[in-house]
Amino acid sequence: MSVIENSKLAIVGAGAVGTSLAYAALIRESAREVALYDINSTKVAAEVLDLAHGTQFTGASRVTGGDDLDVVSDANVVVITAGARQHPGQSRLEMAGVNVEILRDLMPKLVERAPDAIFVLVTNPVDVLAVAAQQFSGLPPARVFGSGTVLDSSRLRWMLSERVGVAISNVHALIVGEHGDSEFPLWSQARIGPISLADWMLTRSAGGSASSSGSVPFTEAEFESIAEDVKNAAYRVIEGKGATNYAIGLSGARIVEAVLRDEGAILPVSSVLTDYRGVSGVALSVPSVIDASGIARVIDVPFSPKEQALFEHSAATLRASLDTLGLA
Amino acid sequence: MSVIENSKLAIVGAGAVGTSLAYAALIRESAREVALYDINSTKVAAEVLDLAHGTQFTGASRVTGGDDLDVVSDANVVVITAGARQHPGQSRLEMAGVNVEILRDLMPKLVERAPDAIFVLVTNPVDVLAVAAQQFSGLPPARVFGSGTVLDSSRLRWMLSERVGVAISNVHALIVGEHGDSEFPLWSQARIGPISLADWMLTRSAGGSASSSGSVPFTEAEFESIAEDVKNAAYRVIEGKGATNYAIGLSGARIVEAVLRDEGAILPVSSVLTDYRGVSGVALSVPSVIDASGIARVIDVPFSPKEQALFEHSAATLRASLDTLGLA
Amino acid sequence: MSVIENSKLAIVGAGAVGTSLAYAALIRESAREVALYDINSTKVAAEVLDLAHGTQFTGASRVTGGDDLDVVSDANVVVITAGARQHPGQSRLEMAGVNVEILRDLMPKLVERAPDAIFVLVTNPVDVLAVAAQQFSGLPPARVFGSGTVLDSSRLRWMLSERVGVAISNVHALIVGEHGDSEFPLWSQARIGPISLADWMLTRSAGGSASSSGSVPFTEAEFESIAEDVKNAAYRVIEGKGATNYAIGLSGARIVEAVLRDEGAILPVSSVLTDYRGVSGVALSVPSVIDASGIARVIDVPFSPKEQALFEHSAATLRASLDTLGLA
Amino acid sequence: MSVIENSKLAIVGAGAVGTSLAYAALIRESAREVALYDINSTKVAAEVLDLAHGTQFTGASRVTGGDDLDVVSDANVVVITAGARQHPGQSRLEMAGVNVEILRDLMPKLVERAPDAIFVLVTNPVDVLAVAAQQFSGLPPARVFGSGTVLDSSRLRWMLSERVGVAISNVHALIVGEHGDSEFPLWSQARIGPISLADWMLTRSAGGSASSSGSVPFTEAEFESIAEDVKNAAYRVIEGKGATNYAIGLSGARIVEAVLRDEGAILPVSSVLTDYRGVSGVALSVPSVIDASGIARVIDVPFSPKEQALFEHSAATLRASLDTLGLA
Repeated sequence: MSVIENSKLAIVGAGAVGTSLAYAALIRESAREVALYDINSTKVAAEVLDLAHGTQFTGASRVTGGDDLDVVSDANVVVITAGARQHPGQSRLEMAGVNVEILRDLMPKLVERAPDAIFVLVTNPVDVLAVAAQQFSGLPPARVFGSGTVLDSSRLRWMLSERVGVAISNVHALIVGEHGDSEFPLWSQARIGPISLADWMLTRSAGGSASSSGSVPFTEAEFESIAEDVKNAAYRVIEGKGATNYAIGLSGARIVEAVLRDEGAILPVSSVLTDYRGVSGVALSVPSVIDASGIARVIDVPFSPKEQALFEHSAATLRASLDTLGLA
Repeated sequence: MSVIENSKLAIVGAGAVGTSLAYAALIRESAREVALYDINSTKVAAEVLDLAHGTQFTGASRVTGGDDLDVVSDANVVVITAGARQHPGQSRLEMAGVNVEILRDLMPKLVERAPDAIFVLVTNPVDVLAVAAQQFSGLPPARVFGSGTVLDSSRLRWMLSERVGVAISNVHALIVGEHGDSEFPLWSQARIGPISLADWMLTRSAGGSASSSGSVPFTEAEFESIAEDVKNAAYRVIEGKGATNYAIGLSGARIVEAVLRDEGAILPVSSVLTDYRGVSGVALSVPSVIDASGIARVIDVPFSPKEQALFEHSAATLRASLDTLGLA
Repeated sequence: MSVIENSKLAIVGAGAVGTSLAYAALIRESAREVALYDINSTKVAAEVLDLAHGTQFTGASRVTGGDDLDVVSDANVVVITAGARQHPGQSRLEMAGVNVEILRDLMPKLVERAPDAIFVLVTNPVDVLAVAAQQFSGLPPARVFGSGTVLDSSRLRWMLSERVGVAISNVHALIVGEHGDSEFPLWSQARIGPISLADWMLTRSAGGSASSSGSVPFTEAEFESIAEDVKNAAYRVIEGKGATNYAIGLSGARIVEAVLRDEGAILPVSSVLTDYRGVSGVALSVPSVIDASGIARVIDVPFSPKEQALFEHSAATLRASLDTLGLA
Repeated sequence: MSVIENSKLAIVGAGAVGTSLAYAALIRESAREVALYDINSTKVAAEVLDLAHGTQFTGASRVTGGDDLDVVSDANVVVITAGARQHPGQSRLEMAGVNVEILRDLMPKLVERAPDAIFVLVTNPVDVLAVAAQQFSGLPPARVFGSGTVLDSSRLRWMLSERVGVAISNVHALIVGEHGDSEFPLWSQARIGPISLADWMLTRSAGGSASSSGSVPFTEAEFESIAEDVKNAAYRVIEGKGATNYAIGLSGARIVEAVLRDEGAILPVSSVLTDYRGVSGVALSVPSVIDASGIARVIDVPFSPKEQALFEHSAATLRASLDTLGLA
């Protein structure tokens, strides 16, 4: 006898990524209920307990879970983090085959239990798996998509924020394309507050005077160096700690919030495209409006000729992977 | 014997604006201590009590206050909301004279008591008073500025957000110039997420498909209509309720946070300019980087020729007021 | 086509209390949508605009409203703040008659438009009106109740917190009975953290030593003085500013959250009692578990003999008012 | 040139506990700067990057770190999580020797770099190490203490909250004594909202009626079973996932906030006691008021005779460990 349907987030996979996402979602109160599923019964029980033991400090949210797939029942959002994880030296695409087969089995069972949910893929290679999950689910692309380059874009913004000395919330920059080696920054649209990144002057004025006296713009070499750093950031983290989990956990929680709060937030998620700047049938990250219907709209962003070429290269890379895996 | 200096916000003036700002700051935990000053002893005591009575629900912050100016002592930020308020039908510039005289008396006393503070003017006409307060304080323009068009820009973003169906956090648009009749939107730099506002297509695609199918851009007439609505928003609120207080309270709290958290946030505050696109010696709102030093930098934004003309008109308007008031 | 029903809070009455409650609810994100209703068309439009203009700074929530009662349609919670307000020197009970008649007209219309909502009375005299609203609504007492002594308890906790130097969140104390002159603190159950208030020693130890060395307990005279201060707090605020609005706004928002988040939070709200410590048929504030069903349970608290007598006196006071108003 | 000293949290040890604490602190904005130190250069660099990559979603906080102990310089709070971790089947006390030697080397270096900080031990066995750290630091017990049973108390509250159907924020219960096998709940002071836990009736009333109709109290057997479950909770988590990290991360962040916000919050931390209910010279968890000075006061809680005996047993257990380790 409740006056309100409360929000339920189900997370499939209780590894480092799934539990970091659950932890972030509980602390941020992204959802009223977080349900964790994993085939490893002892592991998932322990993770649920460890998360539940902290709920004194996290508001009104609740955490449940187990090894019975029914824990996802009636979820509003299902985030999939299960699968083989990326090892040092391994490319994201090399993990694909086994994870595709996991989804072939899993997706119909998830859709049966949470028929109205939005499904968000986080497992890598996320673009390949977004295609696979959408196909196996029978749902429209707007309801089954990957976390894509939300994380990569956050990395780019952090680097730019540190470099220019401006709050990260005022750094507007995106990585688009594959979540992987063919990804690239959309430099032509990057902004610091109200001005183009290309117009930003790098020297700060003296504190006492409110006048503007910066004087050196970014160089092309710096742009390339930053793009490389973003691309290699995951490898650096994996080399040092064996996996990435914290930043991807926050990125996933942020996507979930955009759905559950019906925000209309713009995030670069990866969905199967139809004639997006000439690309169809592959999932790539482009800026998309996320609300309670999933992807309400993908945004048609102007690309420079160089960006268009990079995007087509990213699409070709993905298409080759999909062909190899029989998903084209 | 404390390990940490905690943040203190002093608010001068316990009217509707000052107390709404205090209320927002307490709920948001913008500062650890909020100190309210007003010459009206009974009124300020009652407001402090009313705010304090709600602190069970607002975290670790504290509220104090009274009619002794020493309540502002050692504040990190001082927000000035005291003064004659705008009446229906009255222009912002008509309020100026009496408020200038209040500041002439007040500023040296405030600087004496809070010598390291950043001073934020909220009282109208805010641009005139920002010049007056800076002169009377003897401090650099980076440390004494007005809330300017932070509120007007928030109004513009809300209107655009409602119109395009995108989260307000992804609507990047600014009002610059005078906080008053000569203000104008910087349309040339306005963006919805990663694209120029001029490129935004207004029809949403059907929810089931993730492809982009919007098709009508904003018209020039719509831009003009929105600009007019923003300009008249204050008048509409004042006609209906006699004053504005809630949105300006939040705007002020937001500026305070940018200082106290040393954010480097970009906000269109009003400071005395030195050769900003040719304008000197008047205070106008332009995008500025706000951190713990106050205004760390004003940003040199590209203006279209039309915007440049509007900006010069705004400057001339202000200069005329300053001349009249003997502040030029 | 949304995966989630989002929470809607309707507020009836756009005066200082209703709009402060709306402001607090927007800043705290208590609900996804806040809808404001008032018979004064110009006023409510202005208040909605003023609140909406600040939404750049308040997350994903939205504010709407107007003078058409349909703005409350399908609300999950309806808070009623409309009515004649308390004037200096006026008792809470003297306001009753006209407000009862307002509710007689209003309640059936509200229930028709928001048939599944929880209804929270804030208008004074809140206990009388809680009875009236419950009767006129035809709903069970669990779904129609008053904000009661939530505010008075917050005042008590703030005074104790200041006195003992402990965070307000660790001060557990309640005012029960009438929200008015016959209210009283439940001293027998008051606690500072893990100990009874009567056991708290008032002298703090020197900072360098972690040993306990406080030595003076509260006196009976101090308890009486604090109880008097709480009771008179509203009068002091009203004398100084003409009305109370901020703390009651936060109190109301807190009750709303307990419902919308299905918290099971314990709050001293005022509902029509059935044999509660011998009292039936009047609405008085006693600790109640609030969740998405409204009042899930009233808690049977041990009273000292003196507290029992005070409670019966409070009940008799209310019953006399109800008799006079033809509501018994 | 900053108007405000911002809060710095240093975390020693970049393992699962240290990084979960950092993650929680960043998301909750517990501190403005989080600095992570670890002797493993590659590991700490990777953890800092992974945390930094998520800062787009975590407000104005910053994360830094490395393998140079100078990263802790001028911290306001230093949390120590470094050390050998507890293995399945291993008692907390068996880990002690090596961790004591780590602290003997570390504490003087930390105090040198952060001379005004509050030091919080999280490494196990936390009570033994709190004694060691206090001795090696030369600082008073109020400034060097362990996280103690803050986590165990949170576990107890969660279990009780689930059992009684009341929000965890209204469940007031504490585990005191050793953070380990001799710990025990302070049942005599446990409360659900305004009433003693022993008085709580376990059957909920039907939703439609607001009257109280619960009817069965907790049994002694249930209390014992819950106490056992809390004690074994860590072992269950460790068996299932190899370690605990999330709940202890939140517990640590909460303690840090109480210091940095100067809250006066009551938390059961473990400090060296002087004649606390007859116990001196060992560190045990008892409810303590935490503010910017560290432990402002330990609270003299009434114990039942059984609780007094359990507390003395806990003290004897600790004293034996300290003797063995040469710390008595």
